[in-house]
Amino acid sequence: MKKIHIIGLGLLGGSFSLGAKKKLNDLVITGFDIDPKNQKDALTLGIISEVKETPDLDTDLVILATPADTLGGLLVKTLDQIGPETLVFDVGSTKSSLTKLTAGHPKRSQYLAAHPIAGTEYSGPKAAFEDLLDRKVMIICELEKTDLHLKEKAYELFDALNLKLRFMDPEEHDRHLAFVSHLSHISSFMLGQTVLQKMADEKNIFDMAGSGFASTVRLAKSSPAMWAPILTENKENILNALDGYIANLSSFREKIAQGETKELFDEMASINKIRDILELGK
Amino acid sequence: MKKIHIIGLGLLGGSFSLGAKKKLNDLVITGFDIDPKNQKDALTLGIISEVKETPDLDTDLVILATPADTLGGLLVKTLDQIGPETLVFDVGSTKSSLTKLTAGHPKRSQYLAAHPIAGTEYSGPKAAFEDLLDRKVMIICELEKTDLHLKEKAYELFDALNLKLRFMDPEEHDRHLAFVSHLSHISSFMLGQTVLQKMADEKNIFDMAGSGFASTVRLAKSSPAMWAPILTENKENILNALDGYIANLSSFREKIAQGETKELFDEMASINKIRDILELGK
Repeated sequence: MKKIHIIGLGLLGGSFSLGAKKKLNDLVITGFDIDPKNQKDALTLGIISEVKETPDLDTDLVILATPADTLGGLLVKTLDQIGPETLVFDVGSTKSSLTKLTAGHPKRSQYLAAHPIAGTEYSGPKAAFEDLLDRKVMIICELEKTDLHLKEKAYELFDALNLKLRFMDPEEHDRHLAFVSHLSHISSFMLGQTVLQKMADEKNIFDMAGSGFASTVRLAKSSPAMWAPILTENKENILNALDGYIANLSSFREKIAQGETKELFDEMASINKIRDILELGK
Repeated sequence: MKKIHIIGLGLLGGSFSLGAKKKLNDLVITGFDIDPKNQKDALTLGIISEVKETPDLDTDLVILATPADTLGGLLVKTLDQIGPETLVFDVGSTKSSLTKLTAGHPKRSQYLAAHPIAGTEYSGPKAAFEDLLDRKVMIICELEKTDLHLKEKAYELFDALNLKLRFMDPEEHDRHLAFVSHLSHISSFMLGQTVLQKMADEKNIFDMAGSGFASTVRLAKSSPAMWAPILTENKENILNALDGYIANLSSFREKIAQGETKELFDEMASINKIRDILELGK
């Protein structure tokens, strides 16, 4: 593999480049970002060696790493442009709409639907770092629809980055991610919102915030440009997760209001088993 | 200062001992815990040198570090027992009820109402470590009601531990903490609950959980023995915070349901200012 082209030079796109360059020799990485400042930063940081809107015909891999609302159009356009030996994969947080959109495309076999479970609350090329993807989970959907020979190019990169591959349906992916990722972001943003509203009356309220608050509110620093489209894109699954969350909060609220200390204790004790489950996942 | 007695030998009580021993010489630290296993662990870990239910009359400092539902009775009992040169402080997460309870006590001036903003999701003597309190905020309520001379004993310890003192009314403390601590714990527990419920249908759901989920759900590992009483104790303030949180979630849910991507973007962008606020607090 010699040539990689990355569209969307933010946290993920940038980290794919920096990680790949650390592990693979003689790579030429070009790329594009709609924001001229990101283009410039990506050049300065060595994420890309050249800005180029369209990948060369002999490009091995094209990585699409733009927000969810732009990925569909970009994916179809990119498939239309690429040569026969190029594989395209996206790293978007939702997978159903992209796989549906490309189902009938003549170059469907040159596309791999992927989603690395990796990120931070920061965004842009300056947030990228070479180890972001190291030993992270990479979800792959509809693997069987991608050309066997072209897949090898992606595997070469994924192995170099130590990504741990997991395979599932696009619908299953979107359903799961609504619960273990999208809901976390909403709970965190709304926690931030609730305390910010309180700050109108109580100016020094953040002085008392400890590490617990910092941990639960961390995702409220995330990029709205990335998250607003995800919330729209995965709407049905997210509403489902959010309704469950609000129902649980309301029922817990009633236990507090009724002073049911034992019931509160029992419910929290039962949720504590998440300790072992998260430990197992490591 | 020579003698400290600690009742409740868990994460906080244990860390006060280990931190104090690191910084102050020739201390004798005794203590008590209602759980015989904690007594034994505290002896083994060097948190205390002797188990003793009642502090000696010449004890300098008694630290009360038990769950919120036991602190009131324990505080009154301890005040009744101590000699004239002993100062008692508690480290509970709510302050109004304790200051009210002791308002008319003949030894009120031997009590200091305190709350260190420090903790982890773990509990018990084995979770204690000597740097837990290092450079953390210590909230003090009704400072003026504590004897000037006895206060010096607490200050000697607080300085040794590098605690940063903040002063406020007990009511203000409880109101603030409901938002920046208690609500975070509830949001985290209910997030854990919601995903655990989903796991009934989707067994592998936790495989997809990344660092964002881990961060927001971390507090769901916290001790129910500590948290159930706090939720009951600070009920009114917590219901107020929780109602604001549920209202924000419901309104955000409607924006998702209506596909209002721009409104979602604007709301998240405005919440992003929490970045700067948290940065300032460092």
